[in-house]
Amino acid sequence: MLDKINCPEDLKKITIKEKKELAKDLRKMIIDTVSNTGGHLASNLGVVELTIALHSIFNAPNDKIIWDVGHQTYVHKILTDRKEKMNTLRKMDGIAGFPKTSESVYDAFDTGHSSTSISVALGMARARDLRGESNKVIAVIGDGALTGGMALEALNDAGSSKTDVIVILNDNEMSISKNVGGMSQLLGRLRTRRLYKKTNKQTKAILEKVPVVGNKLVKIIQNVKKGIKQLFIQNMYFEDIGFSYFGPVDGNDIEKLESVLELAKNTEGPVLVHVITKKGKGYELAEKNPDKFHSISSFDIETGKTVKSKCKGYSEVFGEKIVDLAKKDKKIVAVTAAMCDGTGLSKFAKEFPNRFFDVGIAEQHAIGMAAGMAKNGLKPVVPIYSSFLQRAYDQIVHDVCIQNLPVTICVDRAGIVGNDGETHQGILDLCYLNSIPNINILAPKDFIELEDMLEFAVNSNKPIAIRYPRGEESDYKFKQHDSLKLGKAEILRTGHDLTIIALGKTVAKAMMLAEKFEEKGISIEVINLRFLKPLDEDTILKSITKTKNVITIEDGYVLNGMGNTITNFINDQQVDSIKIKNLGYPDKFIKHGNVEQIEKKYKLDIDSIEKIIDNNFTKNKKILHGEY
Amino acid sequence: MLDKINCPEDLKKITIKEKKELAKDLRKMIIDTVSNTGGHLASNLGVVELTIALHSIFNAPNDKIIWDVGHQTYVHKILTDRKEKMNTLRKMDGIAGFPKTSESVYDAFDTGHSSTSISVALGMARARDLRGESNKVIAVIGDGALTGGMALEALNDAGSSKTDVIVILNDNEMSISKNVGGMSQLLGRLRTRRLYKKTNKQTKAILEKVPVVGNKLVKIIQNVKKGIKQLFIQNMYFEDIGFSYFGPVDGNDIEKLESVLELAKNTEGPVLVHVITKKGKGYELAEKNPDKFHSISSFDIETGKTVKSKCKGYSEVFGEKIVDLAKKDKKIVAVTAAMCDGTGLSKFAKEFPNRFFDVGIAEQHAIGMAAGMAKNGLKPVVPIYSSFLQRAYDQIVHDVCIQNLPVTICVDRAGIVGNDGETHQGILDLCYLNSIPNINILAPKDFIELEDMLEFAVNSNKPIAIRYPRGEESDYKFKQHDSLKLGKAEILRTGHDLTIIALGKTVAKAMMLAEKFEEKGISIEVINLRFLKPLDEDTILKSITKTKNVITIEDGYVLNGMGNTITNFINDQQVDSIKIKNLGYPDKFIKHGNVEQIEKKYKLDIDSIEKIIDNNFTKNKKILHGEY
Repeated sequence: MLDKINCPEDLKKITIKEKKELAKDLRKMIIDTVSNTGGHLASNLGVVELTIALHSIFNAPNDKIIWDVGHQTYVHKILTDRKEKMNTLRKMDGIAGFPKTSESVYDAFDTGHSSTSISVALGMARARDLRGESNKVIAVIGDGALTGGMALEALNDAGSSKTDVIVILNDNEMSISKNVGGMSQLLGRLRTRRLYKKTNKQTKAILEKVPVVGNKLVKIIQNVKKGIKQLFIQNMYFEDIGFSYFGPVDGNDIEKLESVLELAKNTEGPVLVHVITKKGKGYELAEKNPDKFHSISSFDIETGKTVKSKCKGYSEVFGEKIVDLAKKDKKIVAVTAAMCDGTGLSKFAKEFPNRFFDVGIAEQHAIGMAAGMAKNGLKPVVPIYSSFLQRAYDQIVHDVCIQNLPVTICVDRAGIVGNDGETHQGILDLCYLNSIPNINILAPKDFIELEDMLEFAVNSNKPIAIRYPRGEESDYKFKQHDSLKLGKAEILRTGHDLTIIALGKTVAKAMMLAEKFEEKGISIEVINLRFLKPLDEDTILKSITKTKNVITIEDGYVLNGMGNTITNFINDQQVDSIKIKNLGYPDKFIKHGNVEQIEKKYKLDIDSIEKIIDNNFTKNKKILHGEY
Repeated sequence: MLDKINCPEDLKKITIKEKKELAKDLRKMIIDTVSNTGGHLASNLGVVELTIALHSIFNAPNDKIIWDVGHQTYVHKILTDRKEKMNTLRKMDGIAGFPKTSESVYDAFDTGHSSTSISVALGMARARDLRGESNKVIAVIGDGALTGGMALEALNDAGSSKTDVIVILNDNEMSISKNVGGMSQLLGRLRTRRLYKKTNKQTKAILEKVPVVGNKLVKIIQNVKKGIKQLFIQNMYFEDIGFSYFGPVDGNDIEKLESVLELAKNTEGPVLVHVITKKGKGYELAEKNPDKFHSISSFDIETGKTVKSKCKGYSEVFGEKIVDLAKKDKKIVAVTAAMCDGTGLSKFAKEFPNRFFDVGIAEQHAIGMAAGMAKNGLKPVVPIYSSFLQRAYDQIVHDVCIQNLPVTICVDRAGIVGNDGETHQGILDLCYLNSIPNINILAPKDFIELEDMLEFAVNSNKPIAIRYPRGEESDYKFKQHDSLKLGKAEILRTGHDLTIIALGKTVAKAMMLAEKFEEKGISIEVINLRFLKPLDEDTILKSITKTKNVITIEDGYVLNGMGNTITNFINDQQVDSIKIKNLGYPDKFIKHGNVEQIEKKYKLDIDSIEKIIDNNFTKNKKILHGEY
């Protein structure tokens, strides 16, 4: 069937039976694609029928469909205009793993972080009304994303807005991992509640909201008769805050979905359609283990095994070390915002169930609650991905740092993460954390240093952020591991021509460069900064006074990053004739691609930096032996 | 009565009748204090009985009371250990207008921003359980703050936690201004719902949660009999998510409050007590006009008139100009997060009710929704106070800037705000906004320039942040107003000895300094930067190449602020022998006091800067005529 469908219009010409065929083809294509490119599998398999039904009933791009989080849009991409490009998914210059307005007119809004869709949809709907247009706006949001404060704020506003906006609650009884919280309990009860018919009065109230447009009402009533009585389950919460609530509906049944969407389309005011889907649907391995197949690298379809043997990553090192530390110190607790597995906390959760708190997708609350715990004598450790930590910026400032509370924030996926693209690059954290008083900011050069930093952090009695990258440590193996001291950098090589200051992941690059230049007779001093804050002013000053030439390398934006901070410090010292160059990412959003490709593109690979050093310091500049 | 009460323990020795006397005394003291010092009046008058009841039933400081937002803690401060210091309220080195753990053991946690209390209380309660302690933890949160995403996230987690934590919902049927949203409707219906007795089964379920500790249960049952049947109103939402819900209760009736708090204290698991209070209670002028008396400068008790005749402030200039612009351009809409009056939007709301959106205390949603509006062809203008904008950091990055959407963010109360202290100083915005790609950052030197910038912003088709301070423009009157061009600074004085680069409020200081130094024969060039981003590199470079000496002055943190950005730019240019000094706030939280006092303390007043210039540039340094 798939070859017959080139745009959503084509869906309107085929039968339900053919759509079921299409669903099979779509599943096959998604499994084939993701097994090859890696990406989000389970969530996409879950929304095959929902996506078909949405594009059958609504008219994109005129009607706007906002996909919350956006990683479940592979089906949508295939059905709109990117079927032929699926083999380039998440690759550099290929199609993105998330909706991108720059990629297709069918992508109504760029998403990537959780819980934004209802706000965006309401904004679009209000704009539509003011412009006198009449298209539909639909937000598709998972039950996990509904624990996010932004979604709850928007639900509150939308409910009382009287605006025509449709929220599809895609309830797969879990978000990325097991769902948590009262909202989840509420939905759970709804799912299992016995169907009952609303009173005539209630039914009448709903039908009154439907404009009587000739055949439409007849059709709706027919649909109701046909057996979609399950639409009429009472949900006090959604109804109390102003929504017309329809559901729960089997979200893997195209026919039922089309009926309920037709009803939603013809209902005035805010509507919430509650659909129940199954993550991983149609691929047995993923149905059984949706967590594993949530976000996965390329894998073997038969066995489900990932092709690349999984090496140890920073998250796992964090996870193991924090268990070790917790064994010795009862005050250590761990808090996660729905990222238990991703951040490496599974082992901790198993060993210390009473000291492990998964608060759901709720970064603000995670940090605020950790602040309360710290104030009451605990040592909370909170791993959050760098780009998601942006959600908790005010809580870091207001709840943690003003009172100087001992919360250890582990900034996972810091720096360039690669294939997930703009929304997931963790290259802002050094910039937004650095200006906050009281916080200490650290980054480890390798796994051993991460372990040391964690031990340091839980014993330091102050707010600490430790940033580390996605994935494995560098191939470069460090021999030196000085004991960690507050605000002290580590000199890994002494030299007299040029100082390289690096932090975290880029320290390995600095060492490799120093070895390369040694062969050319140029002597490079390598400082592993360790602490962006407090800055080791003595070590930096001593080194630059000697070499007079400094290059900084960081896995983040240059503007307001580590290098800029060092430049400002050096400027304040008024040492004469120092030449400083800051390397890092330029002032633009960085698209998807693998990390090596991106580093090369932005001249942050070893070869490019070598050239930069040659051009700026060594070539024609008599840098040798400090003669510059 | 007030002179008999020196600590919460004293409350346990007096009768209800005496407490009613005490309430009168407290009201008098609060009115006397605030009429003199300025501060938050209406909210404090509303919680007099609630505060007495809380300190009667619970045992602070062992029991922890977390006051959401914290501006309603004057009664609490008087009843704990600060009665004698109330005359120093909000003054430099006096007691703060918000709870401060550094001020008293009775202040359990520092608050200031909305919607944090449930997270903090849950964290403290969980810490208590792990530490094997048995104190109570109580969050007191207003109905307005309950629209904040962080509070909703926390409610969701707390509801399913089975943790003993008490949430007092202080429902005054409004937050700072009229409350909005579905949650508000829900509470509204609860308030007016007829009392009805729960079924025996439900009552039994509640009583089962109460541990049977001898007389306690008897007492509770007696209380129930005594007539607090209104406790048992059904609230599906709070109960569905896991709370025991008690209410609504008259929050200005000490006796009823004590009964319900006693019940809450003896109930296991998460409890929500819904109390209805009246803002401004006991002071007729404030009861009639609680908005005016929410946050007020010193006033006459008889007439209610503020002592200082109210001059026009930046917010009002914004409010008037945006109305003018909106008259000419239908695409302009305004969004506020419960700060219609404070941000100057009242006139807009009146003139364009269909284009005005108050989303409640929900900064994340405000920016996310504005992004949706912008994507769909509107020009949303969103004024938010600088320190509250921290809440929407991720939305600015992720929802607005990645897609380069034309949202105009008006960063009100930027820079030092003064008496509200650490939590309200707006001195981080330049730092956290500057690293975000695509955004333009502007600041006006005076009212006229704010008007120009607003006109520029709504016609620029990109994300724009305009920051301006609290209150009035400087006494210095500018004669020059060059027309505004993207990324172009304005040279207000030419000179050859020293360049002063200033932004926004500090430009007036730069001019006054230039005039002072002219008298000393030193020629200062003054650059009104206008745009932090994009930076006017040409103008800066030209000026520094001439003067070789640069001082930057900003109303914000030095670290990662305007001056640091300029220093980095200059470093990249490799111009020889440039001396740069960046003035602004040091890397610490800035406590309360009036703006002039704070500027003086941190050497940012005219006299101090004059000395800094003398010491660093003119004295013994032959700065004159470029000879440095």
